[in-house]
Amino acid sequence: MPTLNALGIRLANARIHLLDQQALPAEQHWLDATEPEVMIHAIQQLKVRGAPLIGVAAALCLGLYAQDHKGEELQRVAQALRAARPTAVNLMWAIDRLWACAPQTMLSEALLIFEEDIALCQAMGTYGATLIDDGDRILTHCNSGGLATAGIGTALGVIRTAWEQGKRLHVYVDETRPLLQGARLTAWELARLGIPYTLISDNMAAMLMAQGKINKVFLGADRVAANGDFANKIGTYSVAVNAHYHHLPFYPVAPYSTIDPTCATGAQIPIEERPPQEVRGASGSFGNVIWAPEQAPVYNPSFDITPVSLVTALVTDKGIWDQASLKTGLHCI
Amino acid sequence: MPTLNALGIRLANARIHLLDQQALPAEQHWLDATEPEVMIHAIQQLKVRGAPLIGVAAALCLGLYAQDHKGEELQRVAQALRAARPTAVNLMWAIDRLWACAPQTMLSEALLIFEEDIALCQAMGTYGATLIDDGDRILTHCNSGGLATAGIGTALGVIRTAWEQGKRLHVYVDETRPLLQGARLTAWELARLGIPYTLISDNMAAMLMAQGKINKVFLGADRVAANGDFANKIGTYSVAVNAHYHHLPFYPVAPYSTIDPTCATGAQIPIEERPPQEVRGASGSFGNVIWAPEQAPVYNPSFDITPVSLVTALVTDKGIWDQASLKTGLHCI
Repeated sequence: MPTLNALGIRLANARIHLLDQQALPAEQHWLDATEPEVMIHAIQQLKVRGAPLIGVAAALCLGLYAQDHKGEELQRVAQALRAARPTAVNLMWAIDRLWACAPQTMLSEALLIFEEDIALCQAMGTYGATLIDDGDRILTHCNSGGLATAGIGTALGVIRTAWEQGKRLHVYVDETRPLLQGARLTAWELARLGIPYTLISDNMAAMLMAQGKINKVFLGADRVAANGDFANKIGTYSVAVNAHYHHLPFYPVAPYSTIDPTCATGAQIPIEERPPQEVRGASGSFGNVIWAPEQAPVYNPSFDITPVSLVTALVTDKGIWDQASLKTGLHCI
Repeated sequence: MPTLNALGIRLANARIHLLDQQALPAEQHWLDATEPEVMIHAIQQLKVRGAPLIGVAAALCLGLYAQDHKGEELQRVAQALRAARPTAVNLMWAIDRLWACAPQTMLSEALLIFEEDIALCQAMGTYGATLIDDGDRILTHCNSGGLATAGIGTALGVIRTAWEQGKRLHVYVDETRPLLQGARLTAWELARLGIPYTLISDNMAAMLMAQGKINKVFLGADRVAANGDFANKIGTYSVAVNAHYHHLPFYPVAPYSTIDPTCATGAQIPIEERPPQEVRGASGSFGNVIWAPEQAPVYNPSFDITPVSLVTALVTDKGIWDQASLKTGLHCI
C-alpha cells in the first residue's frame, strides 16, 4: 500500500486523512475520511475543498472502497461520492474515470490521478508564471493553492512558481465571504511560503485597483464551459467586472479537466445554493457566530459565472488560451 | 430640558443615551454618552455611527457640556469631538455651527440640528422616492437608515418613503464587511419596518445584477466633494463599478450639508484606516472572533471614493442633482 503526502490529504496504511480546512488556520486537525460517508460529509461541509483536491480525495476513497466491495454497493458509493458537490466537475470526472476501470484497478487509477494532479499543477505554474512580471501586485480570490489540489495549486501555484523564479510579488488576498477561504486558507498558505501578502475584505479590491495597488488578477476556476465562461467561488464575477473596468489582466487558472464540453455556455452550469447560516454569521474553530437577525432572509450561491468576455486568458496545464481561442471553442483544441 | 426620541439616540433629564450599534441586533443596549469622553469613545468605536447621527450626537453633547463649562475647557472638548471621526464632515459642520453660537445658546442650536435632521430626512425621502417605481429591486450598502440619522434615514429613508407610498419593493442588503452594518443594522431596520429584504455577502451583488434581480442602487454618502465625487463606506465604489457595468441607476443620498466645498475632488478627501483586527475577524455581542492568521497583514480603509462619473444622480434634501449638474459644481447651486 503506497503512502501519499500532500498539504491537504495523506494516504498511509490504507487510511485517508484530510486536513480539516474548516478548522484552519487556528487548528491543524487531521480527519480520517476513509469511510465514504465521512468523505461525503467532509466534501459537503467543505472540510476538504478545491475542485482538484475533491476529485483526488473522492477517487482515493472509491479506490480503497473497491478493494473489498463490489457490485451494487460499490455503485451506490460511487454515485453518492459523485453527487456530493454538484458544481465540482473534477469530482464527476474523477469518479467516472475510476468507474471505467475494473474494481481491482480503481485504487491504482486513483493514485495515478493524484500523481497527475501534482504534474498538472507544475505545468499550470510554469505556463502561468510567464504572465507574471517582477514587481507585480496580484489579487487572488478564495483558495487555489496546495489546499485545493494534490500539488502546488492552480492560481496560487502560478504565483508560487513565479515567486520561486525570483520575481518580487505582493499578493492581495480577498477574504472570500461567506466561507472565508481567502482569510483562513490562502493567508495561511502564503505565510507558510513567505510570500508577502495583504488580507482585504472582498469589497476593497476595487479601490485598490483604482489606486494602482493591484495590477493583475489570478484565481481558480471550478468549471469552464465550452465557450470559456466559467464558474468559480462567489465573488469571482465581481472581481472580473472590476478588473475589466480598470483595464487589468484577469486570469483564471484550472486544469484542463475543469473544462466541461457538455456545458455550451456558463448558463448551463448549475449553481449550488448553500445554507443561510453561512451568510448570517461565520463558523470556524471558534464555533458558530451569528451577527444578522436570526431569521434574516438570505441568498447564498456558492459560485457565480464569469463570461468569457471578461477573461484575458485561461491558464491550463496544456497551455494558455487567450480570449480569441477561448471563444472559438475550448473543447476543440 | 427637552426630551428627544430617535431610533439611535435619546435625550431626557439632561442625559444623552445612545443605542449601542455594536451590540445590535442581538442586544438593544442604551449607553449613557453624556460625558464627552464617553461620546468620543462611542464615535470612535462606532457605537454611534452614520454621518448625520454622529453630527447630531456630538452637537447635543457639546450643547449640554456648554451649560456648565466655558473658555479653554469648552474649546478643548469641542476640538476633541470635532476630531473623533476624520471623514465625517457633518461632525465638523455641526461642531462649527455650535461654536459660532454663544455657549448658553449651543444646546438650543444642537436641538435645532436634531429637528432639522428629521426634516432633511423627510425631504430626501420625498425627492428620492420619485426615483423608485413599483416593483423595484434595490441594492443598498452599509446602513443609511434611522440608525444613521435623527430621522428616517438617507438612502433607507428614501426606500421607506417609497414603501409607505405603497410601492412594492425588495431590498438586497450588502452585509458590508468588515463591520457588517448591513447584516446587523440595515437588516434589523428593514425587519422592523416590514420591508421585504434579502441579506447577501458584498461579493454577491454583481451576480444579482447580471441575473436582473437588482435594478437600482441607493446608498448613503459620508462626504461629497465639490465636483460630485463622494466618500462612503468601503465597498461603495465596487458597487458603483458593478452598477455602471450593468447599466443600473446608482443613487447616493445625503443631506446637503454632506457636500464639502473645500474638497475640489474626491482625491482631497482623507481616508481613515481602521485597526487590522476588524478584517482578521468580526466583533459583536458574541465577543471577538478571529479567523485569519493572528498576524495577517491587513489593509482596512473605512471609506472609498466613488467618482462622479459613476453617479446617476445625487439625492439631497434640496433636490436631485443629475450627473451634468454635479459636474458643473455642486457648491454653486
